[in-house]
Amino acid sequence: MKPYIELIFGIFNSSTNLKMGTRNNPFFFKLGDAHGASLIFLCINIMFLTLTSSSQLSLAAKVRHFKWTVEYVYWSPDCVEHPVMGINGKFPGPTIHAKTGDTIVVDLTNKLSTEGLVIHWHGIRQLGTPWADGTASISQCAINPGETFQYRFKVDKAGTYFYHGHYGMQRSAGLDWWHKSVHEQEVGLNSIPFRWINEPQSLLINGKGQYNCSLAAHYNISSSISQCKLKGGEQCAPQILHVRPNKVYRLRIASTTALASLNLAIGNHKMVVVEADGNYVQPFEVDDIDIYSGETSHSLTKYLPLMGTPQPPKNYERRILLLNTQNKIDGFTKWSINNVSLTLPSTPYLGSIRYGLKRAFDAKPPPEKFSSDYDVTKPPVNPNSTYGSGVYMIRLNTIVDVILQNANALSGNVSEIHPWHLHGHDFWVLGYGEGKFSDGDEKKFNLKNPPLRNTAVIFPYGWTALRFVADNPGAWAFHCHIEPHLHMGMGVVLALGVEHVNNIPNEALACGLTGKKFSKQKQKHK
Amino acid sequence: MKPYIELIFGIFNSSTNLKMGTRNNPFFFKLGDAHGASLIFLCINIMFLTLTSSSQLSLAAKVRHFKWTVEYVYWSPDCVEHPVMGINGKFPGPTIHAKTGDTIVVDLTNKLSTEGLVIHWHGIRQLGTPWADGTASISQCAINPGETFQYRFKVDKAGTYFYHGHYGMQRSAGLDWWHKSVHEQEVGLNSIPFRWINEPQSLLINGKGQYNCSLAAHYNISSSISQCKLKGGEQCAPQILHVRPNKVYRLRIASTTALASLNLAIGNHKMVVVEADGNYVQPFEVDDIDIYSGETSHSLTKYLPLMGTPQPPKNYERRILLLNTQNKIDGFTKWSINNVSLTLPSTPYLGSIRYGLKRAFDAKPPPEKFSSDYDVTKPPVNPNSTYGSGVYMIRLNTIVDVILQNANALSGNVSEIHPWHLHGHDFWVLGYGEGKFSDGDEKKFNLKNPPLRNTAVIFPYGWTALRFVADNPGAWAFHCHIEPHLHMGMGVVLALGVEHVNNIPNEALACGLTGKKFSKQKQKHK
Repeated sequence: MKPYIELIFGIFNSSTNLKMGTRNNPFFFKLGDAHGASLIFLCINIMFLTLTSSSQLSLAAKVRHFKWTVEYVYWSPDCVEHPVMGINGKFPGPTIHAKTGDTIVVDLTNKLSTEGLVIHWHGIRQLGTPWADGTASISQCAINPGETFQYRFKVDKAGTYFYHGHYGMQRSAGLDWWHKSVHEQEVGLNSIPFRWINEPQSLLINGKGQYNCSLAAHYNISSSISQCKLKGGEQCAPQILHVRPNKVYRLRIASTTALASLNLAIGNHKMVVVEADGNYVQPFEVDDIDIYSGETSHSLTKYLPLMGTPQPPKNYERRILLLNTQNKIDGFTKWSINNVSLTLPSTPYLGSIRYGLKRAFDAKPPPEKFSSDYDVTKPPVNPNSTYGSGVYMIRLNTIVDVILQNANALSGNVSEIHPWHLHGHDFWVLGYGEGKFSDGDEKKFNLKNPPLRNTAVIFPYGWTALRFVADNPGAWAFHCHIEPHLHMGMGVVLALGVEHVNNIPNEALACGLTGKKFSKQKQKHK
Repeated sequence: MKPYIELIFGIFNSSTNLKMGTRNNPFFFKLGDAHGASLIFLCINIMFLTLTSSSQLSLAAKVRHFKWTVEYVYWSPDCVEHPVMGINGKFPGPTIHAKTGDTIVVDLTNKLSTEGLVIHWHGIRQLGTPWADGTASISQCAINPGETFQYRFKVDKAGTYFYHGHYGMQRSAGLDWWHKSVHEQEVGLNSIPFRWINEPQSLLINGKGQYNCSLAAHYNISSSISQCKLKGGEQCAPQILHVRPNKVYRLRIASTTALASLNLAIGNHKMVVVEADGNYVQPFEVDDIDIYSGETSHSLTKYLPLMGTPQPPKNYERRILLLNTQNKIDGFTKWSINNVSLTLPSTPYLGSIRYGLKRAFDAKPPPEKFSSDYDVTKPPVNPNSTYGSGVYMIRLNTIVDVILQNANALSGNVSEIHPWHLHGHDFWVLGYGEGKFSDGDEKKFNLKNPPLRNTAVIFPYGWTALRFVADNPGAWAFHCHIEPHLHMGMGVVLALGVEHVNNIPNEALACGLTGKKFSKQKQKHK
C-alpha cells in the first residue's frame, strides 16, 4: 500500500483538446498518512487565495476587516526561485473565511514599485457595489503604487470563490506557473512575430509544485526522479494534509490557471460533487472531474442543480451572438469577438458611463451577431480584425441570451477551449453543441433545470448558450478566462443600470477622463 | 595600421574605486574607416536618447512637437534578446535637436501594460515649468497606462543633455546593461538577505554592445573571440561613423549608466573638452576622461569654466551637511542621508506643498547636519536607520551650500563613489577633499572660477562642497545618480517658492491626496 493518497492532475493540450496524462500523469500530491484516508479539504489557488463563505447563517452578520499589502517577494513555488507578487509577504495570499451576510473589507495597499494593481473577487456578484469588482479599466482605476484602496462588499451567497489580479496579465501565474516573467510573456504576445507563452513549467496546488516533476506527460508517477525528492520544509514541499479513514472531507477546488485545462482525480477514491461556482448541485459521484480556468469545481457537463435553484425565465428579450475568432491586426496576432478585439480604455467604464464622458470609449456598440455565412470549421477567409472599446449597453432587468460560438483559429484544424467568465451575474447554461449554432438548437435548450454558473466553456468548433437576467447595475466584464486570450482581446464589456450606481468611491475614478473631470471642477471652484 | 579607431572604455569597480581595463580593456567601437580619422560625433545614451540644443540663436524660436509612445519591445542591445522599453518601437529613443529659446513639446503616451511612466529631462532646469521635470512622486504623478501626458518646456541653454525614466528603477538600463529585468533587480534590493545587482552584463554605446565582448578586464582588445564577430546589420552591431582625416568632430558624451563609473579614451587620439553639463569650459586636451553616471562630459577635476560663466556669491546663507551612509532598516539594506532613507510618497510634493496637504509626507524636516563625532572611516557604530519623506524647505533665492560627506559602508574598508545630481538648478563645485569635512576646508574653496555643473561626485571617504542659488520655484530631487542607490533611499527633496508655481496641469496631480482633493471638491459641487 502506498504511504499516501495521490491527487492526480491531467493537463489538456489547449490547442487540440486532447487529454494527456490523467490517471497516468506524474503530478501527485501527498494527501494523507500511511493508513489511507477519505477525502480531504484542499484549495487549489491563485497568487492570492480562496475566499470561502460558509452556508450557516450566523445570528449577526459580521464586518470582517483585513489589511493587505501587495509587494514582490522572492519565492520558490516550484523549487525554482523567482519574484512573485505576495500578500503580506506570503504566497499564495491569505484565505478569507466568512458567512453569508458578512461584509468583507479589505484595505489593499500597493507596495509594488511602478505597477498598478486591482483584485477581482471571482464569483462574488458585488450586488450594489459594482465599483468593488476589481477590474482595471472597467470597475475602477488601477491602484497606484503607494496608495491604498478599500474593497468593501457583502457575501451574498455561500460557496467557494477565489480572488486574483485583473490588470494586464497580473493574474498569471496561479495554478499554472511559468519561469518567464509576466512582463516578458506580455511582450511576446504583443510582438511580430507572435510569441506564444507555451505550456507552463509547473502546476501548483496551494502555491506549491515541483518543476520537472509536476507537469503531465513527461514523467510517470512511478518514476523516482532525484530532483523531485524533497526533505520537507521547502517552500515548494507538498503540503501534507492528515486525514482519517472513513471520514468525509470537503475539498474546495478552484482552477486558477492562466492557461491549462485540467482533469483531477484522487487515487483509489471517488468524489462527490456538491457545489459549483457558488451554487449547490444534486450530489453525484465521479472518478475524476474536468476543471477549466475560472471554474470553482468542474465542467458544465454532468450535473444538475440542487432542488430549489431558481429556474430560468422561459423567453429571452435580447440575444447576442458572440463569434470567437483568432485574427491579425497590423501583423499582431489577436483574438476577436464579432471581429472586434477588445482594448481597454484608460478611464473605467463605470465612471465614464456614470458621468456621461462619451469620448472615453468607442461610441459605436460592438456587433450583436456575426455574418450568417461565416464558416466556423475553417480559418478565417479575411483574418483582419479591428481594435475596439465599445460596450454592450443593456436595459436593466433585460433577459439576455448569449450564444458563444467557437471557430477555427488562424491555423487549419485548430480550435481551442475557451472558458468564459461573467462578472456581476450568474447565468444558466441552457445548452451546448458542436458546429455552428442554428435556430433549431434552441429547441434542445434545457429550461427545466439548467446549471447556474459564472463560468462556462465553449468546446472546439462548438457553441454554448447562456441566459441571465441583467439585474445588477454596473459595468461588467465577460471574457475568456485564459489570461493570454483576454490580453489578446478576447472579451466584451456589458453595462446596465449604471445611472442607478451611487456612492462610487472617488479613489476608484481618479484616473483618465474622470480624474480630469474632477480636477477641472476643482479649478473652477478654487 | 588598424582599420578603425578604437573608442576605449574602462569600468571602475564601484566599491573599490579601482580603475580596471582602461587602455587595455576590451571594449571597442569602430569609429572610422581604414584611412584614420579625427574625432567623431557620438552620443552615449540611455534607453531613450540625447537631447541637444545648439548654441546658435535662431531668429525666431520654434515650438518643436513630438509624439512619443512608450512600450516594451524585444530588442538585442548586446546581441542577447530581452524586452526593453522603446519609444515609438525603437531603442534607444529619438534624439531631439533644438536651439536655445525653442519650446519642446512631447506628448508622451504610456502603452505599457500595468506600469506607470515619467521622463526626466536631465540637465534641463525647467525654469517656470517645475511640473515638467519628470520625477514621479516629486514633480508629477506617474502617467498611467493608456494615458498621455504633455511635457512642455523651454530650452534655456545650449548643451548636451539626455532624458531617462525616473520612476522605480525604470532608468536601468541605459549604458550599462543587465540581463536580469529591472523588476527582478528591484526585488533583490528589497529582500532579506539583500541581493546586489552586481556588475552589468554589457556596456552599450548608442544602445549597442556585445555581451561577453564589451565588459572590461575580461578580454584583451587584441583577442579575437568568435562570438564578438558580427556581420553587421544586427541590432547590436557597432555603429560605424565614417570620419575624414584631419577634421575636427564633436562628441556629445553622456554617462547614462545605472551603476558603472567609466573612463573613456579614443585610440591614438587626444580629445579637447569644451563643455560639461550644459556649461562651456576653457578648452583643454586630455588622453582620456572619467565619466560618472549622470554626467554629460567628464568628472569634476581637471577643468575650469569658460570666461563669462557666472561666479558664485561670496557667502552662503544656509549650509546643509549631508552624510551618506549605508544602513539597515528591519533587516533590509538601505542608504541614508543623515540617517534618513528617502521613501517617496504617493502624492507628488509639488502638488501636496502647493495645496497645503500636510499629511502627504513627513511633517518633520530632515536633519541639516550629522553628529560631529561620526567616524566616516569606519562602518557605522549603530547601522539602524529610519525611512523618511520629509523635505528641505528652502526660502526662495537663498544661497545654499551643500556639503556632501561620504563614509565607510556597512562592510569595513568599503566606501563607494556617488555621483550626486541636482534637479532644477546648476551648482558651483567649490571644492572636494579627503576625510571628514572641517571648517578649515572652507578656506580652500574655489570662489573665483569653480565649475558649474548639475552632477558632482563624492569620492570614497571624501567630501564635496556645492553652492547654488535656490531661485527656481518647485520641488526638486537631489540624489545619487546610481539607480540602485537612489532606489535604496539615497536622495533628498528640496522645495522652494512652490507658492509661486501656477498652471500645474491637472493631469500632473491626479493621484494620491491631490487626486482625492480634486474629487472631493467635485462631490461638493455636483
